[in-house]
Amino acid sequence: MMAKLDDQALDTLFRSARTFNHYTDRPVDDATLHAIWDLLKWGPTSANQLPARIVWCTSPEAKDKLAACASGTNPDKIRAAPVTAIIGMDTEFHEHLPELFPHTDAKSWFDGNAELRQASAFRNSSLQGAYLILAARALGLDTGPMSGFDAGAVDKAFFADMPSVHANFITTLGYGDTASLHPRSPRPDFAKFNRIA
Amino acid sequence: MMAKLDDQALDTLFRSARTFNHYTDRPVDDATLHAIWDLLKWGPTSANQLPARIVWCTSPEAKDKLAACASGTNPDKIRAAPVTAIIGMDTEFHEHLPELFPHTDAKSWFDGNAELRQASAFRNSSLQGAYLILAARALGLDTGPMSGFDAGAVDKAFFADMPSVHANFITTLGYGDTASLHPRSPRPDFAKFNRIA
Repeated sequence: MMAKLDDQALDTLFRSARTFNHYTDRPVDDATLHAIWDLLKWGPTSANQLPARIVWCTSPEAKDKLAACASGTNPDKIRAAPVTAIIGMDTEFHEHLPELFPHTDAKSWFDGNAELRQASAFRNSSLQGAYLILAARALGLDTGPMSGFDAGAVDKAFFADMPSVHANFITTLGYGDTASLHPRSPRPDFAKFNRIA
Repeated sequence: MMAKLDDQALDTLFRSARTFNHYTDRPVDDATLHAIWDLLKWGPTSANQLPARIVWCTSPEAKDKLAACASGTNPDKIRAAPVTAIIGMDTEFHEHLPELFPHTDAKSWFDGNAELRQASAFRNSSLQGAYLILAARALGLDTGPMSGFDAGAVDKAFFADMPSVHANFITTLGYGDTASLHPRSPRPDFAKFNRIA
């Protein structure tokens, strides 16, 4: 059995962590982005599909290009954040399964079934996006996930060379400015959305 | 800034954690299921949608009912595990937004747009499923997520009273039997699926 996490770690990951729209000036270096991947890559995906394709926007040019695809107040958040990650999903992830899931012919489960690939890529890249958020928190960073953007425009701007990849969601990353936080939205008790059968 | 997690915690969550098909006899009590919810509920979802509706199958009857909907070797895994959770998604989650996201009329963003609700429920309940997996690990448990089942049959068996809820994926929970593990599937380096822009 694995060691449980202590209370401070549970606070960092879940109980005290918040979604941020504003960050301090502290930069996020490329080594930190690699460290996030080196944690999130271990999170389980069905048949080790690993369908997420991630673009980490760190340059002003990349942030401007992404901001131009976003809606509401999201362009400002993207431009101001140290990093914004685009979590894309590869609907042809199955081409990599001979390497990623080598002990059986998992590729054949998906050949010719675009609908199954779409659902699998969406579900499993979303799981990986959640692993990214929690891996970032585990390393002391904060995040600001968003789905308010024109996915087709993001695909054209960032994945034109990979036509099987489509944007799922995006998230800013940095060290959150706690002075900018609003009160937290409520979370219901177990009984509201859970049942024991 | 939040405290970083230590190496042992990173191992428990990501680096040493494994997907299990076999568990020890150690039971998982209802209080532990409540504790998992009391962590995972804090994970971010878009506009605090919280679309996941979770059925925790702990009784032999519930496990049999779920096993009858599963394919391949999954029925045996479900029957043998201490608990199997069904992560469902409510495509009418927007009805709860006046309570869950009270500071603006977020419900109106989704009224009359079934396609947006479907995509939002799928993405955000998948995020919540990932939070469930990592919350369970944080509490010392192991998991075995699966998508090999007949979702329509699960909906009929478990969500007949909630027609807007559809099964997303399922996961066994317990204390893993490490003797049953196979070698781990490979994880690629940063450069394969990531780009810094």
